[in-house]
Amino acid sequence: MTALVLDPDRLLPPDERVRPIARELYTEVRDLPLVSMHGHVEAAVLARDEAFPDPAQLLVVPDHYVTRMLVSQGARLEDLGVPRLDGGPVEQDGRAIWQRFCGGWHLFRGTPSRVWLEHELHDVFGVRVAPSPETADDIYDQIAGCIARPEFRPRALYDRFRLEVLATTDSPTSTLEHHRAITESDWAGVVIPTFRPDALVHLDRQGWKQDVELLAEVSGQRTDTYAGFLAALEQRREVFVRHGARATDHGHLTADTTPLDRGDAERLYADGLRGPLEGSAATAFAAHMLFEMGRMSAEDGLVMQIHPGVLRNHDAAVHARFGLDRGFDIPTRVDFVHGLQPLLQAFGSAPGFRAIAFTVDETTYSRELAPLAGAYPSLRIGVPWWFLDSPLAMRRFREAVTETAGFYNTSGFVDDTRAFASIPARHDVARRVDCSFLASLVATGVLPLEEARETAVDLAVGIARAAYAPPAP
Amino acid sequence: MTALVLDPDRLLPPDERVRPIARELYTEVRDLPLVSMHGHVEAAVLARDEAFPDPAQLLVVPDHYVTRMLVSQGARLEDLGVPRLDGGPVEQDGRAIWQRFCGGWHLFRGTPSRVWLEHELHDVFGVRVAPSPETADDIYDQIAGCIARPEFRPRALYDRFRLEVLATTDSPTSTLEHHRAITESDWAGVVIPTFRPDALVHLDRQGWKQDVELLAEVSGQRTDTYAGFLAALEQRREVFVRHGARATDHGHLTADTTPLDRGDAERLYADGLRGPLEGSAATAFAAHMLFEMGRMSAEDGLVMQIHPGVLRNHDAAVHARFGLDRGFDIPTRVDFVHGLQPLLQAFGSAPGFRAIAFTVDETTYSRELAPLAGAYPSLRIGVPWWFLDSPLAMRRFREAVTETAGFYNTSGFVDDTRAFASIPARHDVARRVDCSFLASLVATGVLPLEEARETAVDLAVGIARAAYAPPAP
Amino acid sequence: MTALVLDPDRLLPPDERVRPIARELYTEVRDLPLVSMHGHVEAAVLARDEAFPDPAQLLVVPDHYVTRMLVSQGARLEDLGVPRLDGGPVEQDGRAIWQRFCGGWHLFRGTPSRVWLEHELHDVFGVRVAPSPETADDIYDQIAGCIARPEFRPRALYDRFRLEVLATTDSPTSTLEHHRAITESDWAGVVIPTFRPDALVHLDRQGWKQDVELLAEVSGQRTDTYAGFLAALEQRREVFVRHGARATDHGHLTADTTPLDRGDAERLYADGLRGPLEGSAATAFAAHMLFEMGRMSAEDGLVMQIHPGVLRNHDAAVHARFGLDRGFDIPTRVDFVHGLQPLLQAFGSAPGFRAIAFTVDETTYSRELAPLAGAYPSLRIGVPWWFLDSPLAMRRFREAVTETAGFYNTSGFVDDTRAFASIPARHDVARRVDCSFLASLVATGVLPLEEARETAVDLAVGIARAAYAPPAP
Repeated sequence: MTALVLDPDRLLPPDERVRPIARELYTEVRDLPLVSMHGHVEAAVLARDEAFPDPAQLLVVPDHYVTRMLVSQGARLEDLGVPRLDGGPVEQDGRAIWQRFCGGWHLFRGTPSRVWLEHELHDVFGVRVAPSPETADDIYDQIAGCIARPEFRPRALYDRFRLEVLATTDSPTSTLEHHRAITESDWAGVVIPTFRPDALVHLDRQGWKQDVELLAEVSGQRTDTYAGFLAALEQRREVFVRHGARATDHGHLTADTTPLDRGDAERLYADGLRGPLEGSAATAFAAHMLFEMGRMSAEDGLVMQIHPGVLRNHDAAVHARFGLDRGFDIPTRVDFVHGLQPLLQAFGSAPGFRAIAFTVDETTYSRELAPLAGAYPSLRIGVPWWFLDSPLAMRRFREAVTETAGFYNTSGFVDDTRAFASIPARHDVARRVDCSFLASLVATGVLPLEEARETAVDLAVGIARAAYAPPAP
Repeated sequence: MTALVLDPDRLLPPDERVRPIARELYTEVRDLPLVSMHGHVEAAVLARDEAFPDPAQLLVVPDHYVTRMLVSQGARLEDLGVPRLDGGPVEQDGRAIWQRFCGGWHLFRGTPSRVWLEHELHDVFGVRVAPSPETADDIYDQIAGCIARPEFRPRALYDRFRLEVLATTDSPTSTLEHHRAITESDWAGVVIPTFRPDALVHLDRQGWKQDVELLAEVSGQRTDTYAGFLAALEQRREVFVRHGARATDHGHLTADTTPLDRGDAERLYADGLRGPLEGSAATAFAAHMLFEMGRMSAEDGLVMQIHPGVLRNHDAAVHARFGLDRGFDIPTRVDFVHGLQPLLQAFGSAPGFRAIAFTVDETTYSRELAPLAGAYPSLRIGVPWWFLDSPLAMRRFREAVTETAGFYNTSGFVDDTRAFASIPARHDVARRVDCSFLASLVATGVLPLEEARETAVDLAVGIARAAYAPPAP
Repeated sequence: MTALVLDPDRLLPPDERVRPIARELYTEVRDLPLVSMHGHVEAAVLARDEAFPDPAQLLVVPDHYVTRMLVSQGARLEDLGVPRLDGGPVEQDGRAIWQRFCGGWHLFRGTPSRVWLEHELHDVFGVRVAPSPETADDIYDQIAGCIARPEFRPRALYDRFRLEVLATTDSPTSTLEHHRAITESDWAGVVIPTFRPDALVHLDRQGWKQDVELLAEVSGQRTDTYAGFLAALEQRREVFVRHGARATDHGHLTADTTPLDRGDAERLYADGLRGPLEGSAATAFAAHMLFEMGRMSAEDGLVMQIHPGVLRNHDAAVHARFGLDRGFDIPTRVDFVHGLQPLLQAFGSAPGFRAIAFTVDETTYSRELAPLAGAYPSLRIGVPWWFLDSPLAMRRFREAVTETAGFYNTSGFVDDTRAFASIPARHDVARRVDCSFLASLVATGVLPLEEARETAVDLAVGIARAAYAPPAP
């Protein structure tokens, strides 16, 4: 049985000259509040504030970083309890799932999942032994014991985590009832929605027509014309803003933002209503709608978050059996330079417009995003996201973008997670990596300590607060 | 005259906190056997076990890493003894070639060729002075003296190098007579073939038709129809498996694996028999055959090694004069995400199927290969290969893929060399770099020493043994 | 008020084992002359040798690295004194511009602009306080006081900077009168022209026809036919060579060098004379002319500098209002492998031909440029340029190219700047970074100190002198 120990200096540079500086900077930011402006926890979780289910349902089953890694080495999603779309049998025994996860613990060596999980197990649940087939049951019992207690309910954890604000991700068709319930409750936590219209702007998505009808219902605007569709989206954005939204969120296959003529947009929309559209028409409409979202952002001030370049559901069989978000979404090359040009030419220097571009194509950091964000006043580079939300990738990000775009054209850390209990661990990793990078600038005479300290605080909280400041009224 | 000294700590991180850890890990793996699962030494070399020719013919002439570097600074391939296709005159004097090589020694500063050559000169041939115009003759004499002795014959070196297994690369038309001769000899070395059908699946290659006729002869299957062609390939794969083969090997210009309809494949094959095919038809057939090779691998269990993305023979004049493999093969961008999708959708989760994707396009490490290998159970990422088989590139590889795919979705080191005497040097570099990477994880609190030690051994031998395990019967 | 201090060890690695080696190497090269073979200072500046205007006009207004960063965080180009094309009002008060610049000083943290500016302020102008809103006026006064003095005139600075040679960039239509004036003066400085024909080879550029007419006038060759156009260019190249030119310079959107048939080239040229050509014809002609420039270089021996892959004037509104070079030129992907193939096949091994390929697409370093330069005798890889002319990017460059191409297939440092006073700072950064890289090779046992010392000198001056040696007569 191996002890689970967290090195207090973990992820800080080993060098004797650099580590003390990094430690000093980290001490400055370690206990600052968490500003979580881009996440995927459901508002319902905090509205209902119910106890989390068993440890496997909390830490394994919904975390596609974890399940895909186990699958990549031979596990079956069924045996990890991932629900099948057809309702067919999958493992129901949390303890058995947990055992399988602990048996694959060595697969996570060197991965951020391991860093986060160790932090969660140790700091959130007080676990003091490393996961292994032998320790699996004991750890399971310990976590299960924790989550049965009131101080492990979502709102209690929110407070314990020192969250300052938590942004969720929501369809325009959402009534935002859970957000309202939280606001109207006597709990002081701040949970705000984010407007994510992806399902509504891709005419080739299954269920698009139903979603558009639902949009009509929720917005009170007829959506049987393109004009009505736009009006409905504008109405929903307005409602989101009233509920505290700061941003929109857009996941497209490419970065294309080429607008269509009004007539073409109307025609494609009408075609979409008559039946599913084929590829290129749907693609053109999606690009057009990204442009339109930019136009609306220039008007209502919601920060436009763009993260293109992921080919979803690479394995059709996994998609058909288990649905979305199963670890088979694979990044592809992105061209931000031509893709964003129409959007940036139209709104890139407009006073109220703000955009953040995220990527999982690291080649665009120094070649495209840093030069773009280092010129256009509206554009910031999103910090490392998804596959790149990891210590070495974060370091590469700072190394690739800072020299061209500086620190102040980045977005501030976003944790982008469904895994509520991992939020502090994720911010902690970012703070450690950013302080390490700053320490290396100090140690090489590029930045005085005092300025590094100020920058560390800005990276931890200041820049995120500024980048996602509420829209000017 | 400068001494040739090998720093025992070479390639280990200089940091005082990290180096001792790296050294401890390296000590653990330094003397482990060499598992050489992907190489280009000819089986005949070990079957015949004859003395190597002169030092220049051993270390300079056949090594295109070395000759291209000298050419890039003004040397002529003729003067380096590289044979002309037309049989025209080239330098025959090994000593003169060796002199030219030693005169260009400074060009290799900072390159892996230098690291390998220093290791070979020092450890294999006992050279103790650095190459230079002044020392060239003495070094030549020393090596010439060595290779005349029985303990420098190929089999003796195989044993001295602690090779556990050596895979060669062979055409499907090979009779494998040399492999058989080795197996039937009283020598205990293990030399196994690898099935490389490139010449047979590219309808636009010169000599394709003759190769297909040779295939018919060797396999005993008529190859005048597509069905016969497939049957002949299957027959040869079966023979390769019986001779111990563990893998196939595929070098295509792109990663495309789109299958054709049976009828289209038959038609293209028939067209190819009638005369050379133009570009796109040949390309489509090659992609189709990569898919077919996948299908056969799913059946017979041979590991499918794919390494796309090199534009061969960039300089037509060099190609016309000196033939293949002269240092003018240049990498290009690869798209694994779309390219491998048909293959992975069809076989990526099939029980017996195994594939390893190698690349010389580093941009695909974090963006494409790590996410793919971190999801599909069949796919591993090949370790750095060719231009990237070098200390800094290996470090970048671990840094780019580990966080997404872990260690256990990689292939284990492959030396991929024609240069028999460089095999230990190449494995040694990989072991030093991997131990250094692991040491940095230990020093930053990400991995306990005990797990790093286990991982170091896995990277040195365990993972390669597992990745290339014999097909299940 | 914070002191402005330059760490004498800045940019050297912090590691205790590596830093002393780096310092030793740096000491060796610190005071070597500056070889500036690729710059954008106007010859007129040194011909006239007038005092520089005010501090803002010297250090802020013309430096698009500086203005774009301020703009990216909300400043207006007008308020930074950048002239409008329409002559409309912009800030004229140098002190107000300087104040705005100092107010944005924190934006430059971690950027090379900050490293250069600190070096200039401290070493050239003797400033000892860090820029801030409070210190802006004092610093302004101090610099203004300096530049009023004779020892801060351009020629005095040239001598003080220990410049050995300064290459300018000039249109083929230039009469080179300023270069001639310098040569004929009693001042010993060497200022040589570089032949940059971009404006003449892009048929879609505004003003192309006028430029071609001007070319006729300057060259004394009729340019109303394609043959005349080529003859005029050849005449100008000859004049440039006579004025000491060593190189040509080519900024194209892509790396394409596909030649046209003579008839097609003639037809396109004639079409261009009749009126502006549309995209693909102009693109084809530009690629063809790049090939033609190669042909001429193979004849007259001018080094061909190629730097493709920048989409100029990304924001049409900024372009329309302020013209070229305003920080909105954004890099895009480049394909050197296919792009340069026609050029390299034709001239890549020709005796007199020399080419240097620069890039701001880092993905091409290890994948394309190092393999190409590591094979073709004529080709070198340009050192990091523009956005990549920065400490971390330079380090990445050495790490990415050295293992494949060595040191001697690179170009030597080029400062590529319009900012005369920043030249020493830029060379100093390169020397520090290169010495640091070499020191890490020494510390890891890859290179003996003595060879590192020789290489450091070569990187600082020797390689640039060789790469840009005068054409053989």
